[in-house]
Amino acid sequence: MTAEDLKALIRTVPDFPEPGIQFRDITTLIGHGAGLAATVDHLATRAERAGAQAIAGMEARGFIFGAAVAIRLGIGFVPVRKPGKLPAETIGVDYALEYGSDRLEIDPAAIRSGQSVVIVDDLIATGGTAMAAAQLLRLAGGTVENALFVIDLPDLGGAARLRAAGLTVQSLMQFEGG
Amino acid sequence: MTAEDLKALIRTVPDFPEPGIQFRDITTLIGHGAGLAATVDHLATRAERAGAQAIAGMEARGFIFGAAVAIRLGIGFVPVRKPGKLPAETIGVDYALEYGSDRLEIDPAAIRSGQSVVIVDDLIATGGTAMAAAQLLRLAGGTVENALFVIDLPDLGGAARLRAAGLTVQSLMQFEGG
Repeated sequence: MTAEDLKALIRTVPDFPEPGIQFRDITTLIGHGAGLAATVDHLATRAERAGAQAIAGMEARGFIFGAAVAIRLGIGFVPVRKPGKLPAETIGVDYALEYGSDRLEIDPAAIRSGQSVVIVDDLIATGGTAMAAAQLLRLAGGTVENALFVIDLPDLGGAARLRAAGLTVQSLMQFEGG
Repeated sequence: MTAEDLKALIRTVPDFPEPGIQFRDITTLIGHGAGLAATVDHLATRAERAGAQAIAGMEARGFIFGAAVAIRLGIGFVPVRKPGKLPAETIGVDYALEYGSDRLEIDPAAIRSGQSVVIVDDLIATGGTAMAAAQLLRLAGGTVENALFVIDLPDLGGAARLRAAGLTVQSLMQFEGG
């Protein structure tokens, strides 16, 4: 299945989580067996070309695609989690949201020094979460040069922001309007 | 890798999330490329034998294994989510925790009537979450007869509770003591 076929499997839900937002919903894509597998194939091809030695994915939807890409490539998966979820030693980074702030944590033992870690998530909007994840993975010693997304909302500027920070950004599909 | 090899990749973290709890941590298993892939192979073999037509996994760690099993079998993945995360129509079920209660939600359109849905999660302790997930998937029209876990803590009685409710329960490894 092409990226265009996969895009047709995304459902748009109006006014979620707030009025005026067109939510691009992956539930319909991941519920489609062939669509889910093809999405991971496309991501895995790009991760392999990028020289991935580990995949990092953000809680929770990033776990769906990130772990599957790691398995396809036979490499490890690094969960990037919300605060208080990881039981052993953690390092964290706080980052600003439109209203308030949030925090991501990883287990630094999950990264080897210099290891090439590719970030995988379902969607990039403003890029705040991905920027924080890249910062955190680098803090743990990882080499982070690539981020892969199923969906990009280019009007929200996240991919441009990541590129300005030196990351190579790829997405399988784009939706205008954010 | 055998289930015994995989068990050796689990890290035990004492006193998390509370004093006296021995937390069985999958971070070290999923960070090991061969271990992660073998875990999913073992689960997928069991899900296939159980006649899975879709896999359901619980947020967030269940997404790591559940989606990967679905991809291995070429079938769809149904995310079982915490409240307020799914954008379209949802159905939910509240269930009791040791202190307080929690709620799970699914999108009923993700299940076809009579579809054989196998539950996959990382760990079964008291079984409350898995029982709630089974109830919810059945409410949506699914046929739910099997639940697969990476880790079982048999002393906490979850697997026995699920079996008493008519589910077939399999796990790759067990830890005594809970």
